[in-house]
Amino acid sequence: MKHTHILLGHGSGGRLSHELITKVFLKHFGKPAGGFLSDAAVLNENHGQLAFTTDGFVVDPLFFPGGDIGKLAVAGTVNDLAVCGAEPLALSAAFIIEEGLPLEVLEKVVLSMANEAAKAGVRIVAGDTKVVERGKADKLFITTSGVGRIMSGAENIASAQDVQPGDLILINGSIGDHGMAVMTARSQLNIGSVVQSDCACLHELCREAIGSGGIHFMRDATRGGLAAVLAELCENRPFGIDLYEEKIPVSEGVRGMCELLGFDPLHVANEGKVVIVVAPEKAQALLENLQFHPLASGASIIGKITEDHDGKIWLHTQVGGKRLVDLPAGEQLPRIC
Amino acid sequence: MKHTHILLGHGSGGRLSHELITKVFLKHFGKPAGGFLSDAAVLNENHGQLAFTTDGFVVDPLFFPGGDIGKLAVAGTVNDLAVCGAEPLALSAAFIIEEGLPLEVLEKVVLSMANEAAKAGVRIVAGDTKVVERGKADKLFITTSGVGRIMSGAENIASAQDVQPGDLILINGSIGDHGMAVMTARSQLNIGSVVQSDCACLHELCREAIGSGGIHFMRDATRGGLAAVLAELCENRPFGIDLYEEKIPVSEGVRGMCELLGFDPLHVANEGKVVIVVAPEKAQALLENLQFHPLASGASIIGKITEDHDGKIWLHTQVGGKRLVDLPAGEQLPRIC
Repeated sequence: MKHTHILLGHGSGGRLSHELITKVFLKHFGKPAGGFLSDAAVLNENHGQLAFTTDGFVVDPLFFPGGDIGKLAVAGTVNDLAVCGAEPLALSAAFIIEEGLPLEVLEKVVLSMANEAAKAGVRIVAGDTKVVERGKADKLFITTSGVGRIMSGAENIASAQDVQPGDLILINGSIGDHGMAVMTARSQLNIGSVVQSDCACLHELCREAIGSGGIHFMRDATRGGLAAVLAELCENRPFGIDLYEEKIPVSEGVRGMCELLGFDPLHVANEGKVVIVVAPEKAQALLENLQFHPLASGASIIGKITEDHDGKIWLHTQVGGKRLVDLPAGEQLPRIC
Repeated sequence: MKHTHILLGHGSGGRLSHELITKVFLKHFGKPAGGFLSDAAVLNENHGQLAFTTDGFVVDPLFFPGGDIGKLAVAGTVNDLAVCGAEPLALSAAFIIEEGLPLEVLEKVVLSMANEAAKAGVRIVAGDTKVVERGKADKLFITTSGVGRIMSGAENIASAQDVQPGDLILINGSIGDHGMAVMTARSQLNIGSVVQSDCACLHELCREAIGSGGIHFMRDATRGGLAAVLAELCENRPFGIDLYEEKIPVSEGVRGMCELLGFDPLHVANEGKVVIVVAPEKAQALLENLQFHPLASGASIIGKITEDHDGKIWLHTQVGGKRLVDLPAGEQLPRIC
């Protein structure tokens, strides 16, 4: 490890996170099939496959345009199951609460979780509450875990083993909205348009995608942004990725904020965006099919898997140039999820 | 709710915790079969039953005589599955880390988790890491979740539905060791004998108990102590509990510290003690059977289920008196798990 102490960047989803996971966690826990670097672990059971996932939520502030920590905690875990092709069976929620938190705030968050879970058709069946002294936590942290059953025909999606050159890459809409919404709420930036978080459960979208066939990989692009998903997808694999900037949807508000603040939308967090790698002959039908879904009206085919540059992502820019896309080294936006 | 803000007592496992769970969490999440007030939720699946559990660990200090937060996080979750009669299939671990934590400390904890998981024959297959700014968390919090398959013949243990008057209550050894060990470590009390935490995985013990038959209920006595387990067991049920003080094992060290500091050992946390309710005709054989196990050499039959006083626990004291045992109202020992 390059550092002797934990930095904010170790939690950012970039290179430092990756180093911490491989050199500390996987070193001692061992590398599970599809676990840790995937969104969910796959458990081979007597009667099929289960997906099992966990995620801690520490977003600051607790409430932001388009969502709150509770909605995020439920949607994030539902999505981690959904992108593995799993139907959620049940969720758990563990709360770490700072002494002095108004009960009203806690109840608002819990209600938001209940609403989001109901929308996703899944129940929160197990829980835990710990309270720590004032100043020993920041208001409220929530860790949600989820168990799901992997749908038949979706067994290879989590491992990405079927991804191959020629496959096309689709995303269900504009990138960077969540990160910029939290940024707005945190800094109370006085900007004209308010960016809304895209926080949403994507399980229906994922189910429809699987139903239409030819899906080789799905992953929700959260912390670390679209770039992190694609970098992990092609790392140490015999293929690379070509991205077309003009095809990547970015809202005007997000583009403006990113220019103002110096962020690259490719690295900014989303909470309602799924990256889908699909066989080329199925891609157009999938795109047309998904565009009817309210969470995918802005869907776009943004790139392709190529054998020309293994392990690398090249972005073909709107002005005709090209640049290498990499994982950010350290933190970009801390506490966005 | 009696209070408008969260108090430390809301996380203590006593009356306030109970009120928070029922009036906020269960109100909005709904009451799952065997969930939230049980240690694990039971999921009815096509091919049998799964147990699903989550627990947050915020112990301060991270290292204490007999264990550390990592060992605790693994053993606690293994035990929550084991007392439902479930064989653990997999664990997950979500880390919330304070910026600046020495990597050496994190790695020591991770190694301890890996060792404890290996001893229990279960793998940590999914994980998450979040880093928060310095001063926004206390070094390290870990939330572990677990999935297990409920053994055939153990389907009714989690719900306690078979418990009836005449059943006997067994515990596998002395109470209060974990709470007093953490207390010693925290306060750096300069006392002669060091109390060791009893932190241990109880799955083998639980499996043996189930194998010997007649088990109507099992629960590990953690936060809230033995009293909390028994109070929850008989709450709103058509039976009460008689306890015999002389039969309840308490080590000399724990007894001395409790007297010195004014704690009741019945309310002090354990991390390696299981309360077993067993049919009377099976109790003696179970006791003799378990006493061969290193984690149950001090096992004892400590009381019985009675129809004489519904919902109440009477402790028959060594001096021939009796007193009512209740859940503590607020906090006793914060941050012991």
